[in-house]
Amino acid sequence: MSNGPAKSENRLFKKRSQKLGLAPGTLMHIGEKRTETVRISVMAYDERRCEERQLASSTALDQVSNLGVTWIDIGGVHRLDVIENFGLQFKLHPLLLEDIVNTDQRPKYDDYDGYGYLVLKMLYAGDQRTEVHVEQVSLVFGPNYVLTFQENGGDVFNPVRERIRAGKGRIRQLGADYLLHALVDAIVDHYFVALEIIGEKVERMQNTIIVEPRPQTLQEIHAVKRELLFLRRAVWPLREVLTSLERQDSPLLKPETKPFFRDVYDHAIQIIDTIETLREMVTGMLDIYLSSVSYRLNSVMKVLTVITTIFMPLTFIVGVYGMNFEYMPELKVPWAYPMVWMVMVGIAICMLAFFRIKKWL
Amino acid sequence: MSNGPAKSENRLFKKRSQKLGLAPGTLMHIGEKRTETVRISVMAYDERRCEERQLASSTALDQVSNLGVTWIDIGGVHRLDVIENFGLQFKLHPLLLEDIVNTDQRPKYDDYDGYGYLVLKMLYAGDQRTEVHVEQVSLVFGPNYVLTFQENGGDVFNPVRERIRAGKGRIRQLGADYLLHALVDAIVDHYFVALEIIGEKVERMQNTIIVEPRPQTLQEIHAVKRELLFLRRAVWPLREVLTSLERQDSPLLKPETKPFFRDVYDHAIQIIDTIETLREMVTGMLDIYLSSVSYRLNSVMKVLTVITTIFMPLTFIVGVYGMNFEYMPELKVPWAYPMVWMVMVGIAICMLAFFRIKKWL
Amino acid sequence: MSNGPAKSENRLFKKRSQKLGLAPGTLMHIGEKRTETVRISVMAYDERRCEERQLASSTALDQVSNLGVTWIDIGGVHRLDVIENFGLQFKLHPLLLEDIVNTDQRPKYDDYDGYGYLVLKMLYAGDQRTEVHVEQVSLVFGPNYVLTFQENGGDVFNPVRERIRAGKGRIRQLGADYLLHALVDAIVDHYFVALEIIGEKVERMQNTIIVEPRPQTLQEIHAVKRELLFLRRAVWPLREVLTSLERQDSPLLKPETKPFFRDVYDHAIQIIDTIETLREMVTGMLDIYLSSVSYRLNSVMKVLTVITTIFMPLTFIVGVYGMNFEYMPELKVPWAYPMVWMVMVGIAICMLAFFRIKKWL
Amino acid sequence: MSNGPAKSENRLFKKRSQKLGLAPGTLMHIGEKRTETVRISVMAYDERRCEERQLASSTALDQVSNLGVTWIDIGGVHRLDVIENFGLQFKLHPLLLEDIVNTDQRPKYDDYDGYGYLVLKMLYAGDQRTEVHVEQVSLVFGPNYVLTFQENGGDVFNPVRERIRAGKGRIRQLGADYLLHALVDAIVDHYFVALEIIGEKVERMQNTIIVEPRPQTLQEIHAVKRELLFLRRAVWPLREVLTSLERQDSPLLKPETKPFFRDVYDHAIQIIDTIETLREMVTGMLDIYLSSVSYRLNSVMKVLTVITTIFMPLTFIVGVYGMNFEYMPELKVPWAYPMVWMVMVGIAICMLAFFRIKKWL
Amino acid sequence: MSNGPAKSENRLFKKRSQKLGLAPGTLMHIGEKRTETVRISVMAYDERRCEERQLASSTALDQVSNLGVTWIDIGGVHRLDVIENFGLQFKLHPLLLEDIVNTDQRPKYDDYDGYGYLVLKMLYAGDQRTEVHVEQVSLVFGPNYVLTFQENGGDVFNPVRERIRAGKGRIRQLGADYLLHALVDAIVDHYFVALEIIGEKVERMQNTIIVEPRPQTLQEIHAVKRELLFLRRAVWPLREVLTSLERQDSPLLKPETKPFFRDVYDHAIQIIDTIETLREMVTGMLDIYLSSVSYRLNSVMKVLTVITTIFMPLTFIVGVYGMNFEYMPELKVPWAYPMVWMVMVGIAICMLAFFRIKKWL
Repeated sequence: MSNGPAKSENRLFKKRSQKLGLAPGTLMHIGEKRTETVRISVMAYDERRCEERQLASSTALDQVSNLGVTWIDIGGVHRLDVIENFGLQFKLHPLLLEDIVNTDQRPKYDDYDGYGYLVLKMLYAGDQRTEVHVEQVSLVFGPNYVLTFQENGGDVFNPVRERIRAGKGRIRQLGADYLLHALVDAIVDHYFVALEIIGEKVERMQNTIIVEPRPQTLQEIHAVKRELLFLRRAVWPLREVLTSLERQDSPLLKPETKPFFRDVYDHAIQIIDTIETLREMVTGMLDIYLSSVSYRLNSVMKVLTVITTIFMPLTFIVGVYGMNFEYMPELKVPWAYPMVWMVMVGIAICMLAFFRIKKWL
Repeated sequence: MSNGPAKSENRLFKKRSQKLGLAPGTLMHIGEKRTETVRISVMAYDERRCEERQLASSTALDQVSNLGVTWIDIGGVHRLDVIENFGLQFKLHPLLLEDIVNTDQRPKYDDYDGYGYLVLKMLYAGDQRTEVHVEQVSLVFGPNYVLTFQENGGDVFNPVRERIRAGKGRIRQLGADYLLHALVDAIVDHYFVALEIIGEKVERMQNTIIVEPRPQTLQEIHAVKRELLFLRRAVWPLREVLTSLERQDSPLLKPETKPFFRDVYDHAIQIIDTIETLREMVTGMLDIYLSSVSYRLNSVMKVLTVITTIFMPLTFIVGVYGMNFEYMPELKVPWAYPMVWMVMVGIAICMLAFFRIKKWL
Repeated sequence: MSNGPAKSENRLFKKRSQKLGLAPGTLMHIGEKRTETVRISVMAYDERRCEERQLASSTALDQVSNLGVTWIDIGGVHRLDVIENFGLQFKLHPLLLEDIVNTDQRPKYDDYDGYGYLVLKMLYAGDQRTEVHVEQVSLVFGPNYVLTFQENGGDVFNPVRERIRAGKGRIRQLGADYLLHALVDAIVDHYFVALEIIGEKVERMQNTIIVEPRPQTLQEIHAVKRELLFLRRAVWPLREVLTSLERQDSPLLKPETKPFFRDVYDHAIQIIDTIETLREMVTGMLDIYLSSVSYRLNSVMKVLTVITTIFMPLTFIVGVYGMNFEYMPELKVPWAYPMVWMVMVGIAICMLAFFRIKKWL
Repeated sequence: MSNGPAKSENRLFKKRSQKLGLAPGTLMHIGEKRTETVRISVMAYDERRCEERQLASSTALDQVSNLGVTWIDIGGVHRLDVIENFGLQFKLHPLLLEDIVNTDQRPKYDDYDGYGYLVLKMLYAGDQRTEVHVEQVSLVFGPNYVLTFQENGGDVFNPVRERIRAGKGRIRQLGADYLLHALVDAIVDHYFVALEIIGEKVERMQNTIIVEPRPQTLQEIHAVKRELLFLRRAVWPLREVLTSLERQDSPLLKPETKPFFRDVYDHAIQIIDTIETLREMVTGMLDIYLSSVSYRLNSVMKVLTVITTIFMPLTFIVGVYGMNFEYMPELKVPWAYPMVWMVMVGIAICMLAFFRIKKWL
Repeated sequence: MSNGPAKSENRLFKKRSQKLGLAPGTLMHIGEKRTETVRISVMAYDERRCEERQLASSTALDQVSNLGVTWIDIGGVHRLDVIENFGLQFKLHPLLLEDIVNTDQRPKYDDYDGYGYLVLKMLYAGDQRTEVHVEQVSLVFGPNYVLTFQENGGDVFNPVRERIRAGKGRIRQLGADYLLHALVDAIVDHYFVALEIIGEKVERMQNTIIVEPRPQTLQEIHAVKRELLFLRRAVWPLREVLTSLERQDSPLLKPETKPFFRDVYDHAIQIIDTIETLREMVTGMLDIYLSSVSYRLNSVMKVLTVITTIFMPLTFIVGVYGMNFEYMPELKVPWAYPMVWMVMVGIAICMLAFFRIKKWL
């Protein structure tokens, strides 16, 4: 179920080859294999009323009341018949349907005739808040409806649902474009959570990197670096997507909604900034890691050198008086043995003093 | 109270998650928790008069005389009721109010209908001039008023206040747009102080880096690097902010004020240049640090090698004459012992000469 | 026959010098020498019929029926007479013909009067799926024909051929511009396969890099880096090529085909993104490799230091009691020998404890 | 007096804080403290005549004849009264005057109503041609005058003065805009001299870096790198300055003068190119330095290893026959001692051969 | 005579200072000193005839027939009188003449009234094909003439001359603009030769870098890197030059010639691409070099450690039984000596096994 960035990245060069040779517009689900049924939940509301229901199949759409705004949230894109049926009912372009089921799209905004299509990456924390899950969301919006296609259908949109039910604030007064904004805003708000999780990882690593630098630490650093790379790829195109959304003159977006999209745009910029900061911090950690390793090598070498330098001359001296020459006058002298000891202690003390001056001890 | 860049950076991926699921425009203070009351100081002036007062609450605004230009400085954005009250009185957009209380905005300029909104980062030195404090300032300006929202309300704006009181120079003759310029100029001038503090740190480090390179030094270098990164993020958007201020055709900015904003723009460019220079210097320090470490390793290794290379052969020689063979003719020769000493001294001298030629000593 | 990226890259600065001094537009085959005959396969189809034949020579083109769309696929560009003949029959510009036979073109799109010219790189997996073959494809397209010039004529276009034969989907209803899209799409789809092969290589290396880092590993990493560089050079211009194709107002491209080219464009962006990710991963592997090497050096040095540090003092002690002084009282003491052993064992244990505290063991 | 780039760079974050809180347009000299009087030299010329005089004070300006072009060269910007007086007489904007006395401006071009303002950095060699001095020049030009404000007033403009006196070439026939060009050209020509000085430094370093790499060398490399960084900051904006000068439609610049400014622009580009080349060379030197250091470490280690590896086994062998066992049959054998010597020599020769094969000797 | 890139690069900051203080447009030859006479060869041709002659001096130009296109090739720019004479006869701008004799121009295109001016760098192989010579070519072209100013006048243009003489192909039918293209094409074609020479160097280095890495190798790598840097600076501006040539609406370039310039543009792009590839390869070689060095250090250290670790304990053991204690029971035991040998052999075998497991042997 979990679908973390590291895995997803591999996915990028894994699964596409199955599609080789198919005509464009041919639906084929690219993503994890699934068998669950697809959840379809419909919300229709206007300023006064709000209806909500779970649909068994996509054919039951005509049961939905014809209120001001209709939001259909589809949880699961692996059932191609369901997607195709939505395509027929809302007259969606086959390439759009193909992009919905192909879950490794880059975030983008495509402007079709009469409706718009938005692909985003949704990031949310796992249960232990140690990993970031990622899935693709497609948003199709027309004059009075919004369709959202999620892979798993997590709880990212729940606060929006709550706000619609409560009927407070602007959301019930304004149209489908404001709903679109609310959904995009909910997705982007969750990016901050993902950043917090990674930020905590970075902080934990910063502590262990000095204490015990190991190649494993390095691999962890690179894992975080890759996660940030992945995040960046998910968020970076958002800038462009939101800009083109804001700029377009389509009647789908009313002028009074635009400041809200500009607000989301500001958040996206802030997220990109934070990602860049984290990337610089991680790069700095690499330097510190490498420096710690070489500092430790240094201190190991100093110990070796100190020991060798102290004992080499001493061993030489005791070797001298181990020689078996017949005529070695010192050997006969009674105070020679203590004398030698004194000389040796003197040498050792000099050496230690030398090392202290050199700051090796 | 202190709120240095290092901490603030962590803040970037810390506090936002509290806002998850709130409707946009919902006020929620993101920043340090505070309980103080909010200071509101009002200055109203025209060419001849200047009135100044401290307000107890935001409801007392109607006591303010209706002179040419009114500047209301609000010190503290944690009291949401105060902010909301200002929003009502000046008819400010809810998203703008949200940005005021959310203190991790990226510097930006938003053009609203009838007023403009500017977010900047304010940098000022701490009491010991060793650290740089950062806080967010929001400036709202209309045809005849300027509102400034500070987090703590430091003394950055005091010189402007003095100039208004003194009534010398242009400030009393010109309108709200010139006041806006004076405030932005005061903020930007303080950036130079922040740069000086960091520049002094860099110089101090440059001395210690050669004398005693340690991993702690490396961490200090990276801390400065991060501070510069943070500064850059605070100043870089300023370029764009000032450009869009200067370019806009809004009646809020009179043509004769524009050269003054161009002047501030020049200062911003200069600050960015200096930051880049400091960044390059810090990067150079990293190289020097790593090189010092490896140079020290080198000299440690040389000592080890010199000692080993001198004593190894000598120890071997004395070992030879420590052997217990019955038939070792040398052992019987009377001058063999001094002879061996001479050979050994000769070897040692040759070795030392060799190392001198190799420049290891 | 195989013609992998590594080789092709050398080709870039190898063969051009033969052309020195020839007039532009002079045909000269730059590429591998070949002697095979050129395969020419023609497909002509409209909504109802589809004719297919293999031509013996390019002069037999008039045997081809005059259906809606004609696709002539030429397998081999080394027979200059064949290319020239096509040039005459389709009134192609001499510089275009020169580009077809000169197989180290950069991908580009040239707009001629009445027809368009597209050069792309075709990437496909070798038989063992361990290497990527590359060849140049030139596509010339007019109002009702598409000419494709391949170097070897692999099976990249077979799925398109199948779709035309089957007559399902849009391909038979739409014109030459849709055929062009189908061919470009088939080429771009194969890039994903090439990326998968390289991605698998990268994963294999990631395992061996920790276990056994050797300079050969480094060379392999750099070989992959070069392959990625080559891929990038093949794919990067595609962006621009597809943008200029989509933008042009020529009657050759109908508006309803443009969304399909935008789809291919999205794929190209995705491939470029993946290449960049792989490049970053490979760069990260370089860091890990270097770190592994220095970590191993570290552990080697630790062993050396531990052994030296333990045995140096012990060897000194036994040396002391190997001295031949006449007056060494310890030598006479009966329990001196076991005493010395105990001291030595004590020293060894202290040393080991010291190393355990230092985490060297 | 000397004011080299290294110092000037520190200046960037040193002196500005004095200005904190002053109103914009308030004159305050930022730069080295000076007390000398200000030299004012005036040149007025037309096609036939040329008058030249040194003024005692700026109030004597009305003594100057009213010829075609008047060039007033002010040597020293530390006397604020002089600058202010010029401001009054030529009706210059207060911000312009502030920029003149504030000597750490970034090069820029400001277009005022009726006159233009140019700030440039002037680089010239010191007396020993080993260092580069830098000072700021401000050029104000109107329809028939040019004012130049130098900090010290070096001899950079002397050749222009000579050309005016000689009256040969175009300079006397053409107007103030050509004089402006001649002055800018003289400044830019001196950049080549500065580059030569740095280039010579780089070449000197390239020799010492191989012979004797030391951390001091590294610091020298970084000093040059910083000088280049500083130069780049002085020259880079020039591009933009000259482009905006050339493009403007102001009547101050006649069309026939524009090719001359384009010529200066070409020089600026060339200087930027050379700076980039030097930067790349210096970066390469860093690599060579680090490599030299590690190569030396390598050769030190090889000597250590060779000595240790040869003498360790030999010392072991002589240790064996130094043992005091009662039953060691070899000790009794007469030829055992020469035999042991032969074995030891054999081992040493084998070791040396091994090292020769390994290319360590 | 030879004038390789390495030298030329130094030239960049060497010779300009001679020009200090000269008026712009003053001719002064910047380049190698020469004394040869200047070769002037004239070719005049139209569709039917072709006249060719060598002129003694530039004053004899009126002997040239007035055919369709006249190409005057001047070999040598050191005779200022010759250049000035051409300037007078063709009414060339003085700045243009200055650029011709000043041989360190950056490639550029200047559009004058009635004629165009092109500066390019000409690269050609030396006699041993191991070095690349570089010289500057200036091309002035009017409606019916082309002037080419070479420094040495190599044989780069010979193929063009041959094609004119032969009268085949387009060259005799088309005008001066096509001749210009033919000359530029000839120059650009020679860049491929230069790239081949450097490519061969890179390949040779790639072999030696593994076998025997030395600091000299590193210097060679950096020399090639600098050559590539130089090449890039010669080729990079070409892009822009050719773009502005193609874009201009001047009547000098006929529309039918433009595709030919686009073809040259494609070649320039390809050359830039190849240079970038070579640069990346050279950067990769730096990594491999550094890694080889550290790998070798590693293997040296392993040998040291293995030898030390095996012999240290053995030397300790033989030291133990070399002690002179009176009460050492082992010394009396007959089988103690072979026993000690067995223990020592056992220790050595264990050590070797340990190292084999650690993969150090």
